[in-house]
Amino acid sequence: MSTLYLRTSKNDISKYVILSGDPWRVELLKESLDKPKHIAFNREFNTYTGLYEGVPVTISSTGIGAPSAAIAMEELYECGMEVVVRMGTIMGFKDNMLGKVLIPIGSMRLESTSDTYVPKAYPAVSNAELVNCMNKGALLHNRDYINGLICTVDGYYSQMKESKLSKEINKDVLSLSEEIEKYNICGIDMETSLILVLGNLMNIKACSVTMTTVLKNLEESLEGNDRAKAENDLCKIVLDGIKIFHEEDINHE
Amino acid sequence: MSTLYLRTSKNDISKYVILSGDPWRVELLKESLDKPKHIAFNREFNTYTGLYEGVPVTISSTGIGAPSAAIAMEELYECGMEVVVRMGTIMGFKDNMLGKVLIPIGSMRLESTSDTYVPKAYPAVSNAELVNCMNKGALLHNRDYINGLICTVDGYYSQMKESKLSKEINKDVLSLSEEIEKYNICGIDMETSLILVLGNLMNIKACSVTMTTVLKNLEESLEGNDRAKAENDLCKIVLDGIKIFHEEDINHE
Amino acid sequence: MSTLYLRTSKNDISKYVILSGDPWRVELLKESLDKPKHIAFNREFNTYTGLYEGVPVTISSTGIGAPSAAIAMEELYECGMEVVVRMGTIMGFKDNMLGKVLIPIGSMRLESTSDTYVPKAYPAVSNAELVNCMNKGALLHNRDYINGLICTVDGYYSQMKESKLSKEINKDVLSLSEEIEKYNICGIDMETSLILVLGNLMNIKACSVTMTTVLKNLEESLEGNDRAKAENDLCKIVLDGIKIFHEEDINHE
Amino acid sequence: MSTLYLRTSKNDISKYVILSGDPWRVELLKESLDKPKHIAFNREFNTYTGLYEGVPVTISSTGIGAPSAAIAMEELYECGMEVVVRMGTIMGFKDNMLGKVLIPIGSMRLESTSDTYVPKAYPAVSNAELVNCMNKGALLHNRDYINGLICTVDGYYSQMKESKLSKEINKDVLSLSEEIEKYNICGIDMETSLILVLGNLMNIKACSVTMTTVLKNLEESLEGNDRAKAENDLCKIVLDGIKIFHEEDINHE
Amino acid sequence: MSTLYLRTSKNDISKYVILSGDPWRVELLKESLDKPKHIAFNREFNTYTGLYEGVPVTISSTGIGAPSAAIAMEELYECGMEVVVRMGTIMGFKDNMLGKVLIPIGSMRLESTSDTYVPKAYPAVSNAELVNCMNKGALLHNRDYINGLICTVDGYYSQMKESKLSKEINKDVLSLSEEIEKYNICGIDMETSLILVLGNLMNIKACSVTMTTVLKNLEESLEGNDRAKAENDLCKIVLDGIKIFHEEDINHE
Amino acid sequence: MSTLYLRTSKNDISKYVILSGDPWRVELLKESLDKPKHIAFNREFNTYTGLYEGVPVTISSTGIGAPSAAIAMEELYECGMEVVVRMGTIMGFKDNMLGKVLIPIGSMRLESTSDTYVPKAYPAVSNAELVNCMNKGALLHNRDYINGLICTVDGYYSQMKESKLSKEINKDVLSLSEEIEKYNICGIDMETSLILVLGNLMNIKACSVTMTTVLKNLEESLEGNDRAKAENDLCKIVLDGIKIFHEEDINHE
Repeated sequence: MSTLYLRTSKNDISKYVILSGDPWRVELLKESLDKPKHIAFNREFNTYTGLYEGVPVTISSTGIGAPSAAIAMEELYECGMEVVVRMGTIMGFKDNMLGKVLIPIGSMRLESTSDTYVPKAYPAVSNAELVNCMNKGALLHNRDYINGLICTVDGYYSQMKESKLSKEINKDVLSLSEEIEKYNICGIDMETSLILVLGNLMNIKACSVTMTTVLKNLEESLEGNDRAKAENDLCKIVLDGIKIFHEEDINHE
Repeated sequence: MSTLYLRTSKNDISKYVILSGDPWRVELLKESLDKPKHIAFNREFNTYTGLYEGVPVTISSTGIGAPSAAIAMEELYECGMEVVVRMGTIMGFKDNMLGKVLIPIGSMRLESTSDTYVPKAYPAVSNAELVNCMNKGALLHNRDYINGLICTVDGYYSQMKESKLSKEINKDVLSLSEEIEKYNICGIDMETSLILVLGNLMNIKACSVTMTTVLKNLEESLEGNDRAKAENDLCKIVLDGIKIFHEEDINHE
Repeated sequence: MSTLYLRTSKNDISKYVILSGDPWRVELLKESLDKPKHIAFNREFNTYTGLYEGVPVTISSTGIGAPSAAIAMEELYECGMEVVVRMGTIMGFKDNMLGKVLIPIGSMRLESTSDTYVPKAYPAVSNAELVNCMNKGALLHNRDYINGLICTVDGYYSQMKESKLSKEINKDVLSLSEEIEKYNICGIDMETSLILVLGNLMNIKACSVTMTTVLKNLEESLEGNDRAKAENDLCKIVLDGIKIFHEEDINHE
Repeated sequence: MSTLYLRTSKNDISKYVILSGDPWRVELLKESLDKPKHIAFNREFNTYTGLYEGVPVTISSTGIGAPSAAIAMEELYECGMEVVVRMGTIMGFKDNMLGKVLIPIGSMRLESTSDTYVPKAYPAVSNAELVNCMNKGALLHNRDYINGLICTVDGYYSQMKESKLSKEINKDVLSLSEEIEKYNICGIDMETSLILVLGNLMNIKACSVTMTTVLKNLEESLEGNDRAKAENDLCKIVLDGIKIFHEEDINHE
Repeated sequence: MSTLYLRTSKNDISKYVILSGDPWRVELLKESLDKPKHIAFNREFNTYTGLYEGVPVTISSTGIGAPSAAIAMEELYECGMEVVVRMGTIMGFKDNMLGKVLIPIGSMRLESTSDTYVPKAYPAVSNAELVNCMNKGALLHNRDYINGLICTVDGYYSQMKESKLSKEINKDVLSLSEEIEKYNICGIDMETSLILVLGNLMNIKACSVTMTTVLKNLEESLEGNDRAKAENDLCKIVLDGIKIFHEEDINHE
Repeated sequence: MSTLYLRTSKNDISKYVILSGDPWRVELLKESLDKPKHIAFNREFNTYTGLYEGVPVTISSTGIGAPSAAIAMEELYECGMEVVVRMGTIMGFKDNMLGKVLIPIGSMRLESTSDTYVPKAYPAVSNAELVNCMNKGALLHNRDYINGLICTVDGYYSQMKESKLSKEINKDVLSLSEEIEKYNICGIDMETSLILVLGNLMNIKACSVTMTTVLKNLEESLEGNDRAKAENDLCKIVLDGIKIFHEEDINHE
């Protein structure tokens, strides 16, 4: 029987899962897999399973925000997921981050969907072993990496970027970024802390791997070939990271 | 210049907007419009603008959950939206609700994205004038309607339906439904309170129109032709409700 | 057996109830009823029942603040109340509101007595049908009306108006008004949200009808004959609104 | 210029104030004063000033609940109040309390009006010197007294006593009493913690003196002559307590 | 069997206990006792029992902060403690406080350990009878005393005094002192509210006696002989206060 | 100038710091250092600096609980600390943990001192690089290690273990352990989350290394030689972990 939203079933899903926010990006990512099989594209959830250098990997999407990411996590867990890596681009807070891979060790839980599972005090922390493998993947592709903290929020136009409405109600949207930067936070997204919290509750291994393609205030950004290469590298880093993890895991047994 | 996520601009969007959660359902809904023009399908946001009996109407999608619904609301507001109706199916809490149209006058704010705009004390209340027009739309199509309260949540598998994880961590997911039913709540969704709160903050007119296609605990549900007709009626009710509102609005001027 | 505080019993109370904050104002209001019968005046609760154009109506008082308003609501509900309209004067936040009738569709729950019943997320929303009847009552008396949001608070001298104490402890009492005005709030009182929340929990019909007799910062106010006429109109609007509701209700049956 | 609600001015009010919840009870209490002068009876606020054995004393009322009690406190402070004693009857939680005078040293802040002034962490504590004088007053009239803690709430029918509504929504109203009894709380009222918090913020002396006329669950109560005598004693204890305080205060100077 | 942390047992502990924050100060304090017996010095808990003018008294230490103070309170209560006086020096907020004894009647609960026992609404209030005895003790030694409110916090370098870290993260540490001073708070410490809350829950008698040895902003402080005498007086005041309490208590029986 | 509580200054403190809860245990730990120099023993803070195989290391104590641990962290940071490892014994939640080294990757923030620095949403997460070095240290000494989550609390006798008081007030102290165990929490302490949060805010490297010497409910525990060896191994693991970190760090430069 297939799940309610993703329309996936146990046989469709590898124990290794890569999650993209954007369902259409999954169409590009699947090109890196051998024999990609299309499982389903229902609502914002687009899912393929294939092989990367012999390791079975599922690529799926979460849509934007923690509520739909929680649905993806829950249904993929139902289908046998054991290792999950969120992959995406991110806005970096520090000057020297452009083009660097940010592999957070934890994320500030300013989204609230994870609160419906466990109190805020529970840390949104990445799996250390998986982070190590992703670090090695980054080195393999000659990309510098950073293991810092990020922050996950619910409101794009209320917590990350000004809007017509925020200006009308005099809401100081940018004050959050200014505040959390002082706490050594390196970037903001809308899904990571949910994925890390659920990963820990599920007792599976979860982390997030992001490429810094733009700096705060849009001061500088990767464009053209630099960006295409960066996004391509990101994909390879995650896939190779999974392969490294897979091999280390086999050796442990 | 088009917006960041929906990829829409001021010329593309009518002042009347219908929002569906599911981007693929927009493909069906647009069949009810004359001369539907495809604006964009980016991420989970699929947008068409056309005419309904001469009234220009935009149909777009929010994806699942309040964070992406807030992005849709913000960008459509940026593009000139003045009246917004969320349209969807809903699980009814009371025995006699099957096949009835539930047009809530307000929603309990158990999602947290609206909290990033304004404190919880602010009521998620529908526009009374718009609710009246939707009521008239329902009568036009011989459907009984209910004007009650619903509840909007962030966690599908933590607040609405049991899952593998919720069972493993002994989370009593169903207790929420039991509790809020005592407060005369008629149904649960994942977007309405966000849309109502932002509608009031934007000083535009917002409401939600839902068709009860299934009862609590899946005890009974509309199937086959009954369901197809119900969903079709729902679409017509909203479109006629908008037309009625449009005509009353012209007469006021 | 009569109730503990209001000293009323089932035979004394009509299904239609008007609530004034001020017990002494009930003495004036009862003049609009035929054959007013004095039920009781205990503590701050003064109650009469009579007829308005043949419709039985009870007029009672709540005293100031949500705790005593909750007692009035509870005991009148015990005695058979089915429709309740709070009536009072209010300070308007917008320039063109003087002399207008403000019939809120909801109220921000900054009082806390309603929290002892149901979480803050529950919306304090008026009954839409009843609001419509009150709107018609206003038109009948040639008064413009507004259907917006108001805010209900616990602290008159800590949230609405400066005092000797607030100045001594440097409390910025006026900042609340400034903040909520940005959220399209039109006025402040101390009872409405409690009455609306309890109305929805009781599954009865509740709303609030207020006359704007003074503008923010006391910049302008109705005085003398204008004020007397405004307060008199307010009383008639509510009574006629109840009569309209009563007649529509009979026709539905 | 007289105040907005109590309609009192500086010349009307003594530095010693006794507050009753019930405005009509003030009519009885004033009989204990020499030359009582009626200041005003507006809304639920009824105020007299007179002499007790040569000491000028004002008796006024607060109505039920912390919001109106805060108005009384604020306006009387504006008029020169320096010492305030709340006087009333209370339900005792312990077996041997009937007919005893309960002079609390503090109260649990379960009302929320005081939160609009200062965070919950601030203790609602009586003035120790004033409590001592009231203790002496009790001894003078051969009444045993207790100096314990009480609890102040906002919701009579949601936190103290079951109602039709509380039963319909399955609210366990009595669980609060059971819980706080374990914390050595001796009784519940609806105004004391507000009065103590504001007293401390105003830097004036405040306390509460109550007579236990009924035990929890109405198991036992004072009736007839016993009750009349108890209420009379209560009045005398407070007046003598104020006189004792006045004399000690003079001696200190 | 001795307790887990303090390593004390019922026979070791007097019903009268004095608590110092600093375990090493206990070594000095014990000099005031006749026949001091060393019970244990485990972790930060150093305990002696002896006689003061014939009255058995235990002196022990809590370490810094509410968590360890709670352990001391719990284990000493297990061993029979009935009366507890916290003794220490404090920073005074008001100009004329230097060298005065501050015997608080209550403390603001900004520490959070007491929240693990009972909600924040519960007042941290001293035992009035014990405060009276300490007041008498102060008079006996010709020291002025103040019975006001203090505040208890968890974070020395985040709520009381600036640090390298607080400056780096732009934390305005001093704003708390400025805010609470407006609420008539006289000083800050890190244990008192925990001790008072637990004292009330245990139904034993608790208070705190402090000597003001330094003023806010270190503007002025007691030095040299003045300070030595002040600290010595503080010790005598507490011991004599206990003796006075002991004698009054015997007379009551 | 030396710091206020620890009485340490910049020259006294190595960039590598080991923190023990118990000041007396520092006396044993210093035996593992070459040329240990006693810096100070003030209040509960006992500090030595020496060499471990040529690497300068400071060993100090925090006392029990987050408030005093925060003081130690702040003052040692002031003195130049760059890497900090908390070392202690812990109660394990899972059957096979006895004698294993638990090196948490994060801790649930149920203590509240860290809240005075940064909101609860901020994750208490260990430094991944330092955790890796400690893992290697454990392998070096043939000890199995676990990298899981733990929980840090404020109340020993209110959140971890029953007491006389907790029984009297019917507090279900053990329910917390039962709840958090479902969230894959492996143990409880009273300082770790504070140390991790401050470590991240300070941008230094922090982790916690604990030896499981007792299982939940005291079902099984290490005793005698097993325990002595375990504690000795723990000390060596941390020291070797620091040495490994130091060498890797040098190689990076």
